[in-house]
Amino acid sequence: MDDDRPLFFHVMAYADDADRDVVDMVSGNPDWEPPRALREGLRAFADAPVADYQYPPSEGLSDLRDHLAAHHDVPVEQVLITNGAGEANHLAMACGLEAHSGNEVILTDPVYPYYADRAELLGADTTYVPVDADGRLDPAAVRAVASAETALVVACSPNNPTGAVYGETVKRELADIAAEHDALYVSDEVYAEFDYSGRFFSATAIDSEHVAVTNAVSKSMATTGLRVGYALLPDHLIDPAQTRHMLTNVAVTAPGQHAALRALRETPDDYYAATRDRLRERIDAFCNALEAAGAAYTRPEGAFYVLARFDGFPGTLANTKRLIDEAGVAGMPGEAFGDARADWLRFALVTPRAQEAADRLADYFG
Amino acid sequence: MDDDRPLFFHVMAYADDADRDVVDMVSGNPDWEPPRALREGLRAFADAPVADYQYPPSEGLSDLRDHLAAHHDVPVEQVLITNGAGEANHLAMACGLEAHSGNEVILTDPVYPYYADRAELLGADTTYVPVDADGRLDPAAVRAVASAETALVVACSPNNPTGAVYGETVKRELADIAAEHDALYVSDEVYAEFDYSGRFFSATAIDSEHVAVTNAVSKSMATTGLRVGYALLPDHLIDPAQTRHMLTNVAVTAPGQHAALRALRETPDDYYAATRDRLRERIDAFCNALEAAGAAYTRPEGAFYVLARFDGFPGTLANTKRLIDEAGVAGMPGEAFGDARADWLRFALVTPRAQEAADRLADYFG
Repeated sequence: MDDDRPLFFHVMAYADDADRDVVDMVSGNPDWEPPRALREGLRAFADAPVADYQYPPSEGLSDLRDHLAAHHDVPVEQVLITNGAGEANHLAMACGLEAHSGNEVILTDPVYPYYADRAELLGADTTYVPVDADGRLDPAAVRAVASAETALVVACSPNNPTGAVYGETVKRELADIAAEHDALYVSDEVYAEFDYSGRFFSATAIDSEHVAVTNAVSKSMATTGLRVGYALLPDHLIDPAQTRHMLTNVAVTAPGQHAALRALRETPDDYYAATRDRLRERIDAFCNALEAAGAAYTRPEGAFYVLARFDGFPGTLANTKRLIDEAGVAGMPGEAFGDARADWLRFALVTPRAQEAADRLADYFG
Repeated sequence: MDDDRPLFFHVMAYADDADRDVVDMVSGNPDWEPPRALREGLRAFADAPVADYQYPPSEGLSDLRDHLAAHHDVPVEQVLITNGAGEANHLAMACGLEAHSGNEVILTDPVYPYYADRAELLGADTTYVPVDADGRLDPAAVRAVASAETALVVACSPNNPTGAVYGETVKRELADIAAEHDALYVSDEVYAEFDYSGRFFSATAIDSEHVAVTNAVSKSMATTGLRVGYALLPDHLIDPAQTRHMLTNVAVTAPGQHAALRALRETPDDYYAATRDRLRERIDAFCNALEAAGAAYTRPEGAFYVLARFDGFPGTLANTKRLIDEAGVAGMPGEAFGDARADWLRFALVTPRAQEAADRLADYFG
């Protein structure tokens, strides 16, 4: 999957260079305001004492870990602050591969490409389980491929790119499958605040040594650049993950941790609710337009991506470019996410112009 | 070296819990003000547009890379922004081990413990070259142990913990030795702004595919918690390091990068000069007290650590604690840095109370 990064940047650059106005739905960068308390936290840090500018504890600010432990109802020892969910996933995968037998990583197809690339970096084998037509993952399909070779099952829910929300049953079954094969289930819950189905279930509630949960404030607080995430680790992975984290990054940025802590403490539920409302509106507008355009699509239950397939217009790179040039809408080719949705296009609804993009697509395909 | 982290924290915790006032000279956290422009950069970021809060480019902010490329007179493609010098060293070591033949890392003794721990994490063998009585590294001693097995030579100058500054000849010879054995010389220059000898020479000036240079604003700008560093990489390591960086951390914190850029652009030379003056005063006071106490010590040519050995008082953990309890001064036991200085104690001069600590030591041992 080494080619995905160039592909991603290639599409963004192509859209930037286009000779016309283009609605950018390529990246997963929120376009809405971060919580006020996050900006206030950074402002306050600007005047913080010198000591606050120095190394925070390698495992993260004590108050931030306490807050997250209470929020997720886990022992504080299990909380490791990381450089975004990216490092949390990296650590969970690297340490999971070392601690568990087998060398295989089970991933979904379509897949968030970073998982696949990390598996490759870590020298692991990958097995893909295709999701169903609605983007749902069938645990039985995972069970069918799992074996003594399996070290990791990595899945994201709410899901990027399908928008599926795996409910409690699915997550408990994935945890059971991991336990049966001495593997680790890594549950990436970075889109937890973007659940429109009411079915979101956090794997933190599963009492198992075979589950690690990753998360971040990146999406929930519209600040993918802050780089404050965390891993909630089973006991046997705490020391290895802390050591690897320390020897990779030493610590996570102090201003970001202070700002995230303040924002986590002070941001009212309204903020998240308003974000969901905004995205629901975009999803409705966009899906209605896809309907009008006669496209196949899955209405997301969570997160903020829509996968769509247009008849006679497979989601190749060439067609992605054609859509940029001829319709003024930039998405991501489905092939970036594996084979199962290679004919589809992914649109990220992180632009106030989602309605406009929808209209353009309806006009173009209608 | 897994025990060094607990040892380090153990000493800090012991000093904190002591029943008396203790001057903390354990950690390498600067106690002086960061540049005004750094605080201003963070303050400005608090009001930055939403887009600035999202993922910066994985390889770092373009303007920050441009600034560093110009400052170090290297092509901008070679500049990778990292989560502090810690990640820069990690990437250089990990990618250097993969790209070069052999599996041995040559380190100095005494050593900055993170190098040794990273070598262990990366599954490499380590060979230690003791420095001389003054803390100087003899390249001939490195040459004597280098072989086809050597993949990396990692050394820091100005040095932690010895305070030695390796001049141009030494660095060129280390680069030559690396070239002769298809190895990579990783020159950690995080203390570059703390040179009192006038002999500091940056390995960036060496035209060799066998040299990588690491650095950060952590020490130079008194902000070890900002986590903004960089690697200057030879051509063949650019892609592997960018990929590993992306799959480990995705990107480096945006507020930190913006603040570092502003501080790098706007901080006058006076700031660094004033810092050196302050440290020179501390070094003088501290070394005079060591002299009065009859201790063996090396006056640092750079950085801000002093190694000292007291007759009949070897730098064991037990004696480190005794010094905390009986003299009110907390240092680090030399055994944390290898064998060659296991009898010594390291004192970090990052406290305005360096003179007071010196007086206490002079009283205690005098």
